[in-house]
Amino acid sequence: MAAWLDAAEVPHVVVREPGGTPLGEVIRDLVLKRTDLDVGPASELLMMLAARAALVRDVVGPALEAGKLVLADRFALSTLAYQAYGRGLDPARVHPALDIATGGLRPDLYVVLDLPLREAAERRHRGRGRPDRFESEGEAFRHKVRDAYLALAQDEPGVELLDAQGTPEEVHARICGLLAARLPAFVPAASGGPGRRERDDG
Amino acid sequence: MAAWLDAAEVPHVVVREPGGTPLGEVIRDLVLKRTDLDVGPASELLMMLAARAALVRDVVGPALEAGKLVLADRFALSTLAYQAYGRGLDPARVHPALDIATGGLRPDLYVVLDLPLREAAERRHRGRGRPDRFESEGEAFRHKVRDAYLALAQDEPGVELLDAQGTPEEVHARICGLLAARLPAFVPAASGGPGRRERDDG
Repeated sequence: MAAWLDAAEVPHVVVREPGGTPLGEVIRDLVLKRTDLDVGPASELLMMLAARAALVRDVVGPALEAGKLVLADRFALSTLAYQAYGRGLDPARVHPALDIATGGLRPDLYVVLDLPLREAAERRHRGRGRPDRFESEGEAFRHKVRDAYLALAQDEPGVELLDAQGTPEEVHARICGLLAARLPAFVPAASGGPGRRERDDG
Repeated sequence: MAAWLDAAEVPHVVVREPGGTPLGEVIRDLVLKRTDLDVGPASELLMMLAARAALVRDVVGPALEAGKLVLADRFALSTLAYQAYGRGLDPARVHPALDIATGGLRPDLYVVLDLPLREAAERRHRGRGRPDRFESEGEAFRHKVRDAYLALAQDEPGVELLDAQGTPEEVHARICGLLAARLPAFVPAASGGPGRRERDDG
């Protein structure tokens, strides 16, 4: 997506969560990698939110103020799916804490890439090294998180569920189409991709 | 206080915040000592709460279940004084986040040791090494935090403001008297101290 936005000359910033700031990367290491540390559900939530607060303050906020599109690998929806529904924390308490971290900022669009659990497991086994804290969880947790995303896609505004089966090129084309349809002010029309727009502009 | 409870054979646990668990001590280091890291108000709050959530789950909860008295050097009241009022975060958002960390647990008694700012500064300069993140703040921040404590002592239930001027022995005697008056089920009568109770019992 970033390469596509680059080619289309859409000013943008790419961030990942947790992380993206000096504090956030320390927290990323603690929450994802330090599987020797016993981190309970509430601590996990609050650490993720502390990282997000730094990211919003230091990176996302300034980028938006500069008129850039922000492409984030996870945001508040993942907190609801993993920490509220997955870990069993009360969403009524999680929402105000989310607002502390984001200052009330909401994405224009969430794209949820949906995959049957079996295929997701195959991709995980092919592509990754040592599993992180969430990847180390069992099937029951994965089911809960996927069910949560499917429910959130129905209930929360601005969430699009996208079929992530197929080749990377096929999924990429689906995302481009969705972004162009949903964010026309930011993203060029997808038919033909950003190259087409450059030709049009040129 | 711990020595006094020991002598009185009151089963108890002493904790300090942030810290007291492996995760909490990592966070203590991040929040208090790593003054090179840029930690914003929201991240500071959420990290403190992440440490507290671990402390409540792993130390305070089990101690209370075992019928022990828990003596904590700081708890939720300090979060309200420092992070809400001191840093300017909305208390209406901070309260639900506090509840995530504590699971709704509230102390039977908060003892706020009150000291004029000038005398507090003298004690700090005598007793301490390198100042931590909060000790590095200026006078304006200290004023805000003290005013917050004074207001919270009026508004929040279970808060006792105690004059901390005088010798350590004088302040100790004041705290003993307060605990014995307010928590008679846990703490022996203060007149004569715990030694008196041992004599009575024996």
